[in-house]
Amino acid sequence: MAAKAKVLSFGPLHYVDPEKLEQFTSTFDLHIIEPTDRPGTVALVAEAAKTSGPFDAAIIGMGNGRYELFNEELLGPLLPSLKIVACVNAGYSEFDLEWFTKNKVYVTNTLYAVAEPTADITVMLILNTLRDFSKFEKLVKTGSWRSVVKVPPTDPHGLLLGIVGMGKIGKHVAKKSQAFGMKVQYYNRNQIPAEEEKSLDVTYASLQDLLKTSDVVCVNCPLSESTKGMIGEAEIAMMKDGVFLINTGRGLIIDEKALIQGIWSGKIARAGLDVFDNEPNINPFFRENEKCIVQPHLGSFTNRAWKDAYFECMANIEGYFLKGKPISPVNTI
Amino acid sequence: MAAKAKVLSFGPLHYVDPEKLEQFTSTFDLHIIEPTDRPGTVALVAEAAKTSGPFDAAIIGMGNGRYELFNEELLGPLLPSLKIVACVNAGYSEFDLEWFTKNKVYVTNTLYAVAEPTADITVMLILNTLRDFSKFEKLVKTGSWRSVVKVPPTDPHGLLLGIVGMGKIGKHVAKKSQAFGMKVQYYNRNQIPAEEEKSLDVTYASLQDLLKTSDVVCVNCPLSESTKGMIGEAEIAMMKDGVFLINTGRGLIIDEKALIQGIWSGKIARAGLDVFDNEPNINPFFRENEKCIVQPHLGSFTNRAWKDAYFECMANIEGYFLKGKPISPVNTI
Repeated sequence: MAAKAKVLSFGPLHYVDPEKLEQFTSTFDLHIIEPTDRPGTVALVAEAAKTSGPFDAAIIGMGNGRYELFNEELLGPLLPSLKIVACVNAGYSEFDLEWFTKNKVYVTNTLYAVAEPTADITVMLILNTLRDFSKFEKLVKTGSWRSVVKVPPTDPHGLLLGIVGMGKIGKHVAKKSQAFGMKVQYYNRNQIPAEEEKSLDVTYASLQDLLKTSDVVCVNCPLSESTKGMIGEAEIAMMKDGVFLINTGRGLIIDEKALIQGIWSGKIARAGLDVFDNEPNINPFFRENEKCIVQPHLGSFTNRAWKDAYFECMANIEGYFLKGKPISPVNTI
Repeated sequence: MAAKAKVLSFGPLHYVDPEKLEQFTSTFDLHIIEPTDRPGTVALVAEAAKTSGPFDAAIIGMGNGRYELFNEELLGPLLPSLKIVACVNAGYSEFDLEWFTKNKVYVTNTLYAVAEPTADITVMLILNTLRDFSKFEKLVKTGSWRSVVKVPPTDPHGLLLGIVGMGKIGKHVAKKSQAFGMKVQYYNRNQIPAEEEKSLDVTYASLQDLLKTSDVVCVNCPLSESTKGMIGEAEIAMMKDGVFLINTGRGLIIDEKALIQGIWSGKIARAGLDVFDNEPNINPFFRENEKCIVQPHLGSFTNRAWKDAYFECMANIEGYFLKGKPISPVNTI
């Protein structure tokens, strides 16, 4: 019987069903390290390779922001045995794909795990932003009540929501927001099939038309060269006065200077933001301005998302070693 | 042509469509006072009766908490011409119904205006409570991020929601929470028809079974003699460890001492509360404890709820004077 393939996991496999974990470890030799910061983790990997290697696979677990990027410096010590790196993230802009491909190492992302939890936080931010949740909570928490507020906040019912980016997350956002009586239009690089538009009850609009007519704009596209700064000064100027703007995509998709100006001027009534430029050292404006309803990039931060993401990582590794190819590679070997 | 019936409105008719208001004032002589606190409003009504009366109807508008109760002291000066008092509230425990009935004055409430906005705030509180929104927002607002939190909060998907009170609000809550993958059971004084259970995809449970099995319990019943203190120490003890408890009904439905003990002990993981005993002078525990996600009784606090509530008030007055009876009287003359 061949030796089990060795898997190095960056952190424990949180929330995975014990049965699934038992099945996985009956097939693979799982070795777990506890990543710290960048230098600490670089040292840990080198040491693990020496003392417990050679490793055939690696799992980049949750909380990897504190030791990214994923490149030769971090993962070089695992060559030449390394065949696949399975990451819990959906995005993979933190990977030096050229280096992995050159060394014939697959990189895989997750396709499903974080989509619905990210849509949930989007709709949570839509509701909190429309109904001005944070300001009212602060009034209670500081010993006041609501008598200082003479006009009520905004009801979602009947509002037109414009979703920028109609991928897995955008589609979940459409269905969930409709449960609150919102009408949905979307912009996407490619229009989705008419049949899917019908079943989702959404209509396509150009980005310009979407920005001009939506009561609430939410950004759910990935960050890429073509979406970076996609919502800038000119785009915010097009929006309806008193628009509500939600971003759970990536901070850099919106030009933050234009965003701050839009909030400051009142063009944007309130903004719900899970993502920022230069996280975690974000612009203090977003901490201080009460029109900003904020979260620290928590789209994928639920017990279920974690469990599902590790499941997809394990499935990719099983796919590669048991069936010859991973489920969701992001590079071609 | 008969003189127009005179209507005294406590505050302006917020957010009503101009066409609707024009139609109403073409039929009725609308007189608006600006209520202040209790003594100020008592004096205002007496003065309005003298200088602008006699009034045939009154509208008790939004923000009436600061000058309630509705009784002889406040409304006596409008007798004997007063025939109907239309109130924007759904609940009417603030009315001295015996006095109104004795004087042959109809009191009407609103049936629809606040149901869906109250369900919205319920689901908003469910999401915020599960995902620990307020703690994470505070981390951002105080210049921190999320690294201090090692475990992710709870995903709604697949959780069992127990709705206590399956009236208009509870039914809206059921449908909205299902959009987040929650399964729904309910307790109600009377089980709803099997056909409606099926179309809502909900199952009936005794209160005891509901409390024992639900991951999230939300209270959406009205306050009455039979629901006061309905959730007490024994009921909280029955709940699952780490339950999430939401209350958007009335504070007094839950025994607050038992609630505080349950949160303090960890039995209740977190609580989402829009209503409290002794509002607005609530127990400081709810201001200080970070497991409490709170709002200052905002169920009906949206632009749409206000518009719809005034519409229902006008429809009741039109019903009485034009067709002989109000739409939704709460007393019998």
